[in-house]
Amino acid sequence: MSENTHQAIILISCADQSGIISMVTNFISSHGGNIMDLDEHVDYNDQVFFMRVAWELSGFTIPDHQIEGVFQSEIADRYAMDWSLHFTSYTPRMAIFVSKFSHCLYDILGRYQSGDWRVKIPVIISNHEKLKEVANRFDIPFRYFPITPENKGEQELKQLAVLQELNVDFVVLARYMQILTTNLIQAYPNQIINIHHSFLPAFPGARPYHSAHARGVKIIGASSHYVTEELDAGPIIDQDVVHISHKDDIPQLIRKGKDLEKIVLSRAVFNHLERKVLVYQNRTIIFD
Amino acid sequence: MSENTHQAIILISCADQSGIISMVTNFISSHGGNIMDLDEHVDYNDQVFFMRVAWELSGFTIPDHQIEGVFQSEIADRYAMDWSLHFTSYTPRMAIFVSKFSHCLYDILGRYQSGDWRVKIPVIISNHEKLKEVANRFDIPFRYFPITPENKGEQELKQLAVLQELNVDFVVLARYMQILTTNLIQAYPNQIINIHHSFLPAFPGARPYHSAHARGVKIIGASSHYVTEELDAGPIIDQDVVHISHKDDIPQLIRKGKDLEKIVLSRAVFNHLERKVLVYQNRTIIFD
Amino acid sequence: MSENTHQAIILISCADQSGIISMVTNFISSHGGNIMDLDEHVDYNDQVFFMRVAWELSGFTIPDHQIEGVFQSEIADRYAMDWSLHFTSYTPRMAIFVSKFSHCLYDILGRYQSGDWRVKIPVIISNHEKLKEVANRFDIPFRYFPITPENKGEQELKQLAVLQELNVDFVVLARYMQILTTNLIQAYPNQIINIHHSFLPAFPGARPYHSAHARGVKIIGASSHYVTEELDAGPIIDQDVVHISHKDDIPQLIRKGKDLEKIVLSRAVFNHLERKVLVYQNRTIIFD
Amino acid sequence: MSENTHQAIILISCADQSGIISMVTNFISSHGGNIMDLDEHVDYNDQVFFMRVAWELSGFTIPDHQIEGVFQSEIADRYAMDWSLHFTSYTPRMAIFVSKFSHCLYDILGRYQSGDWRVKIPVIISNHEKLKEVANRFDIPFRYFPITPENKGEQELKQLAVLQELNVDFVVLARYMQILTTNLIQAYPNQIINIHHSFLPAFPGARPYHSAHARGVKIIGASSHYVTEELDAGPIIDQDVVHISHKDDIPQLIRKGKDLEKIVLSRAVFNHLERKVLVYQNRTIIFD
Repeated sequence: MSENTHQAIILISCADQSGIISMVTNFISSHGGNIMDLDEHVDYNDQVFFMRVAWELSGFTIPDHQIEGVFQSEIADRYAMDWSLHFTSYTPRMAIFVSKFSHCLYDILGRYQSGDWRVKIPVIISNHEKLKEVANRFDIPFRYFPITPENKGEQELKQLAVLQELNVDFVVLARYMQILTTNLIQAYPNQIINIHHSFLPAFPGARPYHSAHARGVKIIGASSHYVTEELDAGPIIDQDVVHISHKDDIPQLIRKGKDLEKIVLSRAVFNHLERKVLVYQNRTIIFD
Repeated sequence: MSENTHQAIILISCADQSGIISMVTNFISSHGGNIMDLDEHVDYNDQVFFMRVAWELSGFTIPDHQIEGVFQSEIADRYAMDWSLHFTSYTPRMAIFVSKFSHCLYDILGRYQSGDWRVKIPVIISNHEKLKEVANRFDIPFRYFPITPENKGEQELKQLAVLQELNVDFVVLARYMQILTTNLIQAYPNQIINIHHSFLPAFPGARPYHSAHARGVKIIGASSHYVTEELDAGPIIDQDVVHISHKDDIPQLIRKGKDLEKIVLSRAVFNHLERKVLVYQNRTIIFD
Repeated sequence: MSENTHQAIILISCADQSGIISMVTNFISSHGGNIMDLDEHVDYNDQVFFMRVAWELSGFTIPDHQIEGVFQSEIADRYAMDWSLHFTSYTPRMAIFVSKFSHCLYDILGRYQSGDWRVKIPVIISNHEKLKEVANRFDIPFRYFPITPENKGEQELKQLAVLQELNVDFVVLARYMQILTTNLIQAYPNQIINIHHSFLPAFPGARPYHSAHARGVKIIGASSHYVTEELDAGPIIDQDVVHISHKDDIPQLIRKGKDLEKIVLSRAVFNHLERKVLVYQNRTIIFD
Repeated sequence: MSENTHQAIILISCADQSGIISMVTNFISSHGGNIMDLDEHVDYNDQVFFMRVAWELSGFTIPDHQIEGVFQSEIADRYAMDWSLHFTSYTPRMAIFVSKFSHCLYDILGRYQSGDWRVKIPVIISNHEKLKEVANRFDIPFRYFPITPENKGEQELKQLAVLQELNVDFVVLARYMQILTTNLIQAYPNQIINIHHSFLPAFPGARPYHSAHARGVKIIGASSHYVTEELDAGPIIDQDVVHISHKDDIPQLIRKGKDLEKIVLSRAVFNHLERKVLVYQNRTIIFD
């Protein structure tokens, strides 16, 4: 977590070439920036370069609003970079979608409320009314959109309108039991984080704990990933597992899995918030 | 491991009924047996009872060769038990099948040679000559059966003849890169242990590390299982995983995976040897 | 979790003797009880027998209030058992002690509120006012007992009076930053559950993450244990760890550790609530 | 593993200053080197910079034997670097010390024999004759140095003479049950790798599994570390753990622990061989 200093973060991907790191670090240090964190990765098979660098802006000689233009012309153009700039002074706005399970929601709200995350949650959206009471407990606006096969497309467009009206930057599906359609997914590319209750690619789709029990696996897992149009097939951000045994029936798998789900989802949200995630060819680079 | 005492082990499955444990333990104690280990499991969904009990035979009043008959008539018939009797004085005979990778083979042979396992290895069978040198190093007969699509059925029957001639009790596929056919599988039901280099059911079949890398998973795994006619779909005995990151390219996945494979395979073989595995509906009960 | 049926649970420890299991299971089945779960363990070194058995009371012929007496005279006396009887119809009463960290408290309250645990929380006690707001959010009475070296003994007696007045059965120290004195510990033997933020016995006492960083360990952990008079030396109920690297500075250790702490504490509370924990010679038997 | 290309590896630590990465990468690329791997770490608390960089030497314009001098004068002097240069064309020479346990030895020799490691093992040294048979099996010279309290210093000097005569670069204590004295430790600073059978700093010294059982821990572990003069207190290279339960008696802890020990030791040796380990203030930076 970048404490209380005002920092800039740049995420870069581009074709691997000699001297990129030195160009970027020279850019920062020559303008008076103090690098706080730097991580890079080269995919030597595909010859692609990835980098995340964070620096303190207190003595930086380029004003915040000009950094994007200067970096583009001085550095990014030269290396044909795909890049993004973020400021830790900006607080991202996150919407949470839920259905009936509360464990992920409580986990997120506890972190939010205690100030562990630099985020603003302007809305909780649900297709059920059950968790309204939790939203109320944490004083967060709750919007109820009942979904039927008939009204699904229409309701999702309304949800999208809410997100846009509230300037939501990204969405967390905290055990939201609806499959999103193209409308929402294309509006938030690599900005919708889902938690799936299995170690993907095993057991995609519905009722993975039942499938895990039927298959007799000795581990169960949870996977957080960005949502893409193919179900449960988007870039994986984090995964974890727990050992189980023949003694664990389905209710126990569900109980043990809940602890995985909430931790794996919250770790993904944290890394997303900290701008530590880059997506490349349906895979993620996590600079943690 | 049941140290140096002479013990009997009974494995039981049957419909769950009241009083089974007391009947079995009474049987043992009333005949002078001293129970060393007892574990049981009830599948309350299917109402099936499973039990493993081991007792010392030193003061047991029924001679070894009569235990089977007495238990059958006094206990097993009454509860319609599916059961088996084993003596720790018998040393099981295990064949190892390998191809070109040596890590699982070395792991097994090191344990064998150091006396960690109560097992006899009368033969190593391979479709390549590469690991003959390892077999020689450990003074174990090595049989080479080159496999082509044309000769596969014929060669497998010859392999089976070797196994039967050597009184082999069970088979370990220590990264054997051939898919077994019905002949071998049906001759050794739940007696052929394979190691698959993924966390099944993810990535069955060939090249799972390549698939894992392409999918961008954050964990890789290995699964030991009994071989059934459906590829990589038999009862799972053990699984384990290790966390990976975007830094791990395919050679590194293979390197890290090897450590998982050998440990997960050897744990399965150990539990099989110790008669701690029961199979029920393509799942295992592991009394460890 | 014992669903919605009314069950009895008996926990037993005694010298190991032949026939105990059959005596106990006969007792239950002969009086019309249907065993739902049975687990036993024998410490063959010390020749001590441990057992947990749960059965449905719907058709049981002994009335609830007479079970204790009948079992004592028919079974327990004969084997000199140390034993206890519990009914799932009774909802245990748990007090939570906190200081300033909220992550364990939120984790517990989320489970409580969602009905995952069969427990009643009549009070949250703290030596700081900071988390009063969290207690309010969940409508749980909050009692503030500021502690100084001078008033500690006196305040603890007042805390004890509150616990007794509210019929509290057991206490959870959810990152309570005070060392309890004999008064409280002796009033609740093996009924006070603490979470320590290290893999005990490594790094007992204060600031374990700082010590872990200084020592350069590659894993950090958390341990839940019953509180005894020796600091951080009571029977361990659960432990877990996470791998770390040289990249993790102390704030990151603290952040990653919090996720461990809350899960490890809640797992311990759950097992305690489910009567799955037996203590023997400063160690625990966990029938999970 | 750096495949079959000829590469140079530089490990650096120095005070953190702006522009180091760019200076080093410029040095390599301006002389025709192709960077294959780069990893760096900054300890922001202590303001210390660490770096590992590997590059292909095929088109490099500085001859191998001049790289050290040129880098020293052009780069290292300027930043007051503590640094070292390694060539992948050089095969490090490793001595193994053992006593009676063979599991770590077999694990190392299997990897050695299969060519997984770029290493040469000119000698196995032991204070017992038991494992001579294993050394013979792998055709490695075995030297027997019986140790008594009286002859220990003398024998260790003879061992040291053997190491020096054989140009041994580093030493692996593969469950060697003797505490080394200053003579050996000072001759090989951060070049003696030990495996300790606990998750240090818990249970240093003798019989950690017995202590783990007595304390009732729910995890056991193993730690590989560089040997320093303080027992089991040197820089930790790798650690891992496995969950245990009340069912695990001491022989089972020993059995399960062996699998941890050999894997954790071999991972440390691999990282040491690959020049991925830097030591700073009794901690390690592992560039894996």
